[in-house]
Amino acid sequence: MTLNFKNLLQDKTINRHFSEMRLGLEKESQRVTLDGALATTDHPKSLGNRAFHPYIQTDFSETQTELITPVTTSAKEALAYLAAIQDVMFRSMPQNETLWPMSLPPSLPSEDCQIKIAKLANFEEVLYRRYLAKTYGKRKQMVSGIHYNYELTPAFLKMAFAKQDTYQSYEDFRDHVYLKIATNYLRYRYLIVYLFGAAPITEKGYFRPDEPAPSHPVRSIRNSAYGYTNHQDVTTTFKSVQAYIDGIYDLVDKGILSEEKEFYAPVRLRGGKKVADLAQFGVQYLEIRNIDLNPFEGLAISEDQIHFLKLFLMLMLYLPDEADVAVDEKIALGNRMNEKVALEHPLTQMAYTAEAQTLFAQLKEMLETIKAQASDLKLVEKFEKQLTCPEETLAGRMVNHLETESMTDFASHLAGHYQAQAWAKPYQLAGFSHMELSTQSLMFDAIQTGIAVQVLDQEDQFLALKFGDHLEYVKNANMTSLDAYIVPLMMANKTVTKKVLADQGMPVADGRDYQTIAAAVSDFSFFEGKAIVIKPKSTNYGLGISIFKTGASFEDFQTAVQIAFSEDTEILVESFIAGTEYRFFVLNGETKAVLLRVPANVTGDGKRTIAELVALKNQDPRRGTNHRAPLEKIALGEIEALMLKRQGLTSDSILADGACVYLRENSNISTGGDSIDVTDDMPDSYKRQAEAAVNQLGAVICGIDFIISDKNQPAQLTPSNFSIIEANFNPAMQMHLYPFAGKGRRLTQDVLALLFPEKEA
Amino acid sequence: MTLNFKNLLQDKTINRHFSEMRLGLEKESQRVTLDGALATTDHPKSLGNRAFHPYIQTDFSETQTELITPVTTSAKEALAYLAAIQDVMFRSMPQNETLWPMSLPPSLPSEDCQIKIAKLANFEEVLYRRYLAKTYGKRKQMVSGIHYNYELTPAFLKMAFAKQDTYQSYEDFRDHVYLKIATNYLRYRYLIVYLFGAAPITEKGYFRPDEPAPSHPVRSIRNSAYGYTNHQDVTTTFKSVQAYIDGIYDLVDKGILSEEKEFYAPVRLRGGKKVADLAQFGVQYLEIRNIDLNPFEGLAISEDQIHFLKLFLMLMLYLPDEADVAVDEKIALGNRMNEKVALEHPLTQMAYTAEAQTLFAQLKEMLETIKAQASDLKLVEKFEKQLTCPEETLAGRMVNHLETESMTDFASHLAGHYQAQAWAKPYQLAGFSHMELSTQSLMFDAIQTGIAVQVLDQEDQFLALKFGDHLEYVKNANMTSLDAYIVPLMMANKTVTKKVLADQGMPVADGRDYQTIAAAVSDFSFFEGKAIVIKPKSTNYGLGISIFKTGASFEDFQTAVQIAFSEDTEILVESFIAGTEYRFFVLNGETKAVLLRVPANVTGDGKRTIAELVALKNQDPRRGTNHRAPLEKIALGEIEALMLKRQGLTSDSILADGACVYLRENSNISTGGDSIDVTDDMPDSYKRQAEAAVNQLGAVICGIDFIISDKNQPAQLTPSNFSIIEANFNPAMQMHLYPFAGKGRRLTQDVLALLFPEKEA
Repeated sequence: MTLNFKNLLQDKTINRHFSEMRLGLEKESQRVTLDGALATTDHPKSLGNRAFHPYIQTDFSETQTELITPVTTSAKEALAYLAAIQDVMFRSMPQNETLWPMSLPPSLPSEDCQIKIAKLANFEEVLYRRYLAKTYGKRKQMVSGIHYNYELTPAFLKMAFAKQDTYQSYEDFRDHVYLKIATNYLRYRYLIVYLFGAAPITEKGYFRPDEPAPSHPVRSIRNSAYGYTNHQDVTTTFKSVQAYIDGIYDLVDKGILSEEKEFYAPVRLRGGKKVADLAQFGVQYLEIRNIDLNPFEGLAISEDQIHFLKLFLMLMLYLPDEADVAVDEKIALGNRMNEKVALEHPLTQMAYTAEAQTLFAQLKEMLETIKAQASDLKLVEKFEKQLTCPEETLAGRMVNHLETESMTDFASHLAGHYQAQAWAKPYQLAGFSHMELSTQSLMFDAIQTGIAVQVLDQEDQFLALKFGDHLEYVKNANMTSLDAYIVPLMMANKTVTKKVLADQGMPVADGRDYQTIAAAVSDFSFFEGKAIVIKPKSTNYGLGISIFKTGASFEDFQTAVQIAFSEDTEILVESFIAGTEYRFFVLNGETKAVLLRVPANVTGDGKRTIAELVALKNQDPRRGTNHRAPLEKIALGEIEALMLKRQGLTSDSILADGACVYLRENSNISTGGDSIDVTDDMPDSYKRQAEAAVNQLGAVICGIDFIISDKNQPAQLTPSNFSIIEANFNPAMQMHLYPFAGKGRRLTQDVLALLFPEKEA
Repeated sequence: MTLNFKNLLQDKTINRHFSEMRLGLEKESQRVTLDGALATTDHPKSLGNRAFHPYIQTDFSETQTELITPVTTSAKEALAYLAAIQDVMFRSMPQNETLWPMSLPPSLPSEDCQIKIAKLANFEEVLYRRYLAKTYGKRKQMVSGIHYNYELTPAFLKMAFAKQDTYQSYEDFRDHVYLKIATNYLRYRYLIVYLFGAAPITEKGYFRPDEPAPSHPVRSIRNSAYGYTNHQDVTTTFKSVQAYIDGIYDLVDKGILSEEKEFYAPVRLRGGKKVADLAQFGVQYLEIRNIDLNPFEGLAISEDQIHFLKLFLMLMLYLPDEADVAVDEKIALGNRMNEKVALEHPLTQMAYTAEAQTLFAQLKEMLETIKAQASDLKLVEKFEKQLTCPEETLAGRMVNHLETESMTDFASHLAGHYQAQAWAKPYQLAGFSHMELSTQSLMFDAIQTGIAVQVLDQEDQFLALKFGDHLEYVKNANMTSLDAYIVPLMMANKTVTKKVLADQGMPVADGRDYQTIAAAVSDFSFFEGKAIVIKPKSTNYGLGISIFKTGASFEDFQTAVQIAFSEDTEILVESFIAGTEYRFFVLNGETKAVLLRVPANVTGDGKRTIAELVALKNQDPRRGTNHRAPLEKIALGEIEALMLKRQGLTSDSILADGACVYLRENSNISTGGDSIDVTDDMPDSYKRQAEAAVNQLGAVICGIDFIISDKNQPAQLTPSNFSIIEANFNPAMQMHLYPFAGKGRRLTQDVLALLFPEKEA
């Protein structure tokens, strides 16, 4: 049966969906020290149990890390997840370790016993690795690669099936599609090895002294017979899915393979996660296994590579059927061509350039047929050009480096660079650094501990978290199923919050709100002689606030009311409690962190102007904008200028050595304030009061602000020596995670532990 | 010891707080038929158990309703609660019953046994009433009044205590304050009887034939010896709180009173709800008991009366001490003066006018001392004028009515009028009709069933509900502690909602969103030949929506995209499912109501223009604005004009008889749509799907919108014959409560039952 895909793809609806895909990446690499020696430490404990970890596993050896992305729908999304997972990996390892950026392993220890098989809990898994070590040698097993799991969308397959009449069953049609792609890929994969081969020379210890080895740099030792391959007698047919399965089972029956998964074809037919799934569900996706780690990319594969591979796989389906060529012969030819190209010198022209040029022509024809975007054509042309410029292929670029440095140095430098990048901003999660910091932190912790993370809406900071069958949704890292809906509504309404707390005898600033100047002024007698604060109802970073610590005269009261009304249509007059404001973060009835927030400030050195001091302070990498960093950059805007003016200063004033100047009245971190963790210094009596107040509000996750007269005096309710200012249901956890000073508190871990209590058990 | 309050009240802070109060009202009245006969029915069952009902009780007889407000801080607030409670009472009674608007009972049955003692569960309470019937006669017990519970604020008492040096103990000072007010009130209360007495003549059966009775109309039979008073030997002293208590205990010991609460003084000292509280806590408030029901007011007392009484009570404290007059003699004098004034003819001048004028002068002096508002003075002067215009007093006005109708007719008419008002808009709750209808309905149900309601924030529709010790907070009548915080956040994000539902195999309209015309147009091939709807992302009442039921041509697609972008910066292209949209209200996993919403429309009569038809339809009292009525008024704005224009009509077009014209594309009730309850017609299969979808979202209270192709075909998932449009976490319950057509569904009762499951048990 033959089926003309070229014709089928003329259909607009079909060809549109043809470009879509579902993609998963797996990246293996060796854990090494910064000197490039194989790590001798165990797989990091902080990554939890490898029995269920969805993202981070070990392959053959204890040092061979495998990073696994979830199924995604684009190169960008797959790379974002891979970046995040690798970031977690980097920051879970000791700080003198990194990941080796090449497929061929680093210099290996002289004794085989120094290469440690992965310490897995499942003994069968260990036995399997022992068998591999015996059959192939431990050294070959240390080779790493990228696996590219490629799936066509059900929408495409169903539409294409509906428009053809060669196959009666959808399942047969789908299997045919994948078999065709797999077969053609095996036939033409030499082109991928030419372009993406990146394993030209080995490090010390890869070959035993008596072993034959290439005499010059090649494109890909890994993809040649010198690499990590089955013995020559291991082969199955791609004639049909059943024949493919039978072939492998036969190899296992004969004892040639120990298990199905020992079949190391450059392409595997996959029916699901487990080998047995193929027989049950048919082909669901293809596992492309001949991609070397690209050392020039931190993630070992570029977006262009992913995209080109997709187009190349699409071409494998698009190519006309050659009805007269037997499938197995075609593959055998492909294998021979692959071996030849893999062992060519990287800087020479490829033997099959002419055929490759035809392939590129067909690829461009396909792009036209499916009305692909112009960028696709550009990308294809970029790689086509490399046919005549072997020095631009990955292997070509690598051997060019050999002129100035050894391959070990080359790889070590890159490995160090990628690791340093991961540690440069340890509060960020690569791939998701445009999300809020608290969400990045929660995602980091979830990935680290093996909780599956799905981003439902990036803009909205909306995540789905899954551990086993337990699904939780989280927004802004702290809005969860743990809190009742009414609770944040209560906190959002300051009047209600105060009533609820006051009803239970908790101290809140008593006060009144006014809609007119007249009403406020006519109530003066209520406030005469009392310590009061007069402020706009919606506090705008301290603007319009007047404080009278020993009571106001009638005239001052009047003026202050007018000032407050210049900022808002409603004002509050509240009793003022002298003291310091602290933020208590209470989780599930327990104070997890206490923070002192200091208004934006600079300290002079006798030389620099305030503007210079601000610029200097803003150089701190922890200062950023819009909740994407632990601290915000200090601005020098109108409000700051006003604040300086009141102190007789401008931004050009030079501050005396040691003189501290505040640039804001308000202490918000979002306006450049400093966060100072004081959790361990805060007496328990205040923590208990914070917990009691949060309990009154019925909140599970809450940031509550207290003004405390003197924290060295224990908290008391009557007469109260503290006052509750407000409760926050979205309490910006990031400021506790990486404070300006004091100890960081990993609150996102606490949130996860509360959401998934079974995880700790 | 004497204490000059006049001097104390010079203090600005003190005098300001002096005007504040805490006030509770109790209003007794007889349940009667619309003809003015004593009701023969039992206390309404819908009001639940009288053992705990905080608002609605029965006093002596089964027909003697007692309405009790919570403690409030203003006349307005107290009257709002009284209005609400009375509204509930009216609408809980059979529709041929009302409340008698006067203190003296309606025409009583000839036989005592026809006056039924309240059927209380507590047998001791019944025994007590039997004793009262025997001691005073059932007829006197049928007299009703208003009790005015007056409390000075702790702020005032504490400040005043701090500024004086006569009393060393705060408790002694507070008791002195209340004793002074009580004593002076007993001395001068004749003035209140003069102004507010409203019991001039009795109805048939009040006096037994052999009893002496006044020979002419008087100011207040109730406040005279003919009224509901203790026997002459029942008296205690107001010299001190302890003496007061001892005096009453002595009466009980001697068997003159059966219980402490049988002491019917015009003022009682109260220490709390129970009699025993007084000995334990001292005087906490005063219960003023000599206020007759004012028949001219639906609530039997006006705001002016409440306000004047407060000022009068303040005067009782302000008056200079008369150190040389013994307290008990003073009270005895007051009693004699009261009796005289109570029995004067209402249209005559009062005997003590001269002293009363002095009192008014002192009252005005007090207002000046405390710098009261101008409105207070005006109010005082209004009542002062009545000293010389007895025909303006309540009793005066009542006897003037006797010229044209009998007192029975007068009272019956008013009783009928007040009852009709309560039934006119049965969806509203008097006193709170400015709140959202759903909240009014929830409050009605809570009050009816005996759940205490506190309005924490009117604007924000924020309530606290309490039953026993169980406290719940509710916003907008449906945001509660029952739903997890993350759930409404999920529903608010349409993308997340769709992902969560689609992940579980629920049918949602699949589609894509676009930020640019180019992006949308370039995706045309995805949608070619499919039934689609193109719409702005934030749907603006149907503007900018194009529907292609059989697919769009490329040109039409382009045009529709442009139209949608003219309304929003983001648009959606979704697959269109032909069918009808229904709203399912799902509560705790059960579909409680299904609603069909029909766009705003009018049906012609061959005579009227569309504008006239709209005006006519808008006369329906159920149509209002801003969620304060079950339906909204139909507008004739720009959108409606456009819609008419498309149909070749204007608002001046005359519609043919029976012709129905839609004025809107969208079916929202908020834009004048009709709500049609179809709960009983909707097949169970769709209800189960609605429940399953809401369960997937994890919501307890949810309104979910389905488009159903043909509800006569059972719901199926593949291929789906319905589609989920959106889920709403604030689902406007009012449209189900009072639909345009079909059966109303009392969802607020379901919400309460869910919040307080113990109540049903």
